[in-house]
Amino acid sequence: MFSIIPREMVFYDLFEKGASNAHKGAKALLELLDNYEDVHEKVKKIKDIEHAGDDLTHEILERLNKTFITPFDREDIHELASRIDDVIDLIDVAASRMALYKIEKPTEDARLLARCLVHATAIIEETVPLLRKSKNLQTVLQRGREVHTQENEADRIEQHALASLFENSHDPRDIIKWKDVYQDLEAATDRCEDVCNVLEGIMLKNA
Amino acid sequence: MFSIIPREMVFYDLFEKGASNAHKGAKALLELLDNYEDVHEKVKKIKDIEHAGDDLTHEILERLNKTFITPFDREDIHELASRIDDVIDLIDVAASRMALYKIEKPTEDARLLARCLVHATAIIEETVPLLRKSKNLQTVLQRGREVHTQENEADRIEQHALASLFENSHDPRDIIKWKDVYQDLEAATDRCEDVCNVLEGIMLKNA
Amino acid sequence: MFSIIPREMVFYDLFEKGASNAHKGAKALLELLDNYEDVHEKVKKIKDIEHAGDDLTHEILERLNKTFITPFDREDIHELASRIDDVIDLIDVAASRMALYKIEKPTEDARLLARCLVHATAIIEETVPLLRKSKNLQTVLQRGREVHTQENEADRIEQHALASLFENSHDPRDIIKWKDVYQDLEAATDRCEDVCNVLEGIMLKNA
Repeated sequence: MFSIIPREMVFYDLFEKGASNAHKGAKALLELLDNYEDVHEKVKKIKDIEHAGDDLTHEILERLNKTFITPFDREDIHELASRIDDVIDLIDVAASRMALYKIEKPTEDARLLARCLVHATAIIEETVPLLRKSKNLQTVLQRGREVHTQENEADRIEQHALASLFENSHDPRDIIKWKDVYQDLEAATDRCEDVCNVLEGIMLKNA
Repeated sequence: MFSIIPREMVFYDLFEKGASNAHKGAKALLELLDNYEDVHEKVKKIKDIEHAGDDLTHEILERLNKTFITPFDREDIHELASRIDDVIDLIDVAASRMALYKIEKPTEDARLLARCLVHATAIIEETVPLLRKSKNLQTVLQRGREVHTQENEADRIEQHALASLFENSHDPRDIIKWKDVYQDLEAATDRCEDVCNVLEGIMLKNA
Repeated sequence: MFSIIPREMVFYDLFEKGASNAHKGAKALLELLDNYEDVHEKVKKIKDIEHAGDDLTHEILERLNKTFITPFDREDIHELASRIDDVIDLIDVAASRMALYKIEKPTEDARLLARCLVHATAIIEETVPLLRKSKNLQTVLQRGREVHTQENEADRIEQHALASLFENSHDPRDIIKWKDVYQDLEAATDRCEDVCNVLEGIMLKNA
């Protein structure tokens, strides 16, 4: 008996699971910000999602090492796994930092940034499956532009957030704390764009 | 009728335009710092230059996608376009941040950093055309060392700037604001070095 | 007369020297933190180690340019040299910053971060020689996981350090200064992980 599904197809499955996991993390982060209570529990839940992402990344690297035929270049598999991992890592960093800094109440700008992140990770979740067929190149490029739009929006929100921070915070500590959180959130959106760049690079190479 | 210029040559043209555009942005930034008046207008002008850079990057990626024969590896074209874009992006970030943070008066150190950036982007503008001939490898490596010198100089200036910030600023907010601006300016010079690294990598691969 | 050692073997020697040099820098940094006296002299010593690293990197790039046959892809040689260089660069940045910011007394958390760095660079020093034989892939992946453990530990320490900074510092300047130093130290450990990623990528490509 042997499987009729080529073994290398498992890489696509794992990338898709990784992208879904990142999107799940983004939604958990938004939930934390929208209902800022039981903070430690919710932060812990995001940490668990981040660990699930680590497990997926490790499984990809393990299989990469045991599989002779891969659907695309080994180093690109490594790169894509790492870039998807970065997204969920930063979501976890942002959430953990809010607990670490004992932030008492999220700002509206933080919620807006989390919304961008939910949006960008949703697009990535839809885009990763397109990797299976090289004819999808145009659509992947289009989705890349959509993620870029979210990233621009996140930039704009972060700028507004920083300006109002300097205007309205009386304690410099609050400025320092919130600057870090905003930066984590904005960086997570940047990493979504990096995922798209890797996807585009792989599709172009195999076009 | 058909053009006698091979279609792939257009990539070199676009990279050269991108490098010139980054240099133009650096000069506009220095002008802002040297004559710190009509700030919003001058920041807006730099934003326009950054948008022109975005358009060039998109044109490169569009053409990459439609062109069968490319002058060098598709992923290197993607990489070089992205790294040149990073330089003008950071110049714009630095300028926008000064407006965002309502900085009233630039420091001498900020002007010195902008001067490094003008210098480094001038070298890049001269170096990108060398990509057209693989015999230019030695010169590209030499220019890379010159950009590295500018980057070292920018590091040195940033260090001096930070030290005097902690010595002389009474309001911690000023420290936070200027640290960010100095970091943007220094990072822009770092990105110039990244452009050189990509240029070197491409020349080495095709040597 | 001619050498019986193939000329391309010199690259392995240079990478191994670079890795040892980074480890030497990490130990000098820990020594500075463990015995915080003659600070300028000790910082200068670390700067010298960083310069030795620069010389090794330049020698690799020079030889890359003159050597026809290389032990693995030219761009990977470039990448590995740059990533090893990043580690010693950041160690130097951390040490210089402590002098620049006139830090009077290191914290226990800073010492713990330096200890992670000594650990991670020791693993890298042991791992780089494994590049010589493709049969070492499994061991390289294992060492990569060990460096990842150190990097996780450094993350954990940095988090603790930041939390106690916000709890215990009365002057916001101290928060700003120490955040930077902690971040340099943590980033140096991150760069150790980047070195491992490049090593893994090279081994996978040549497996």
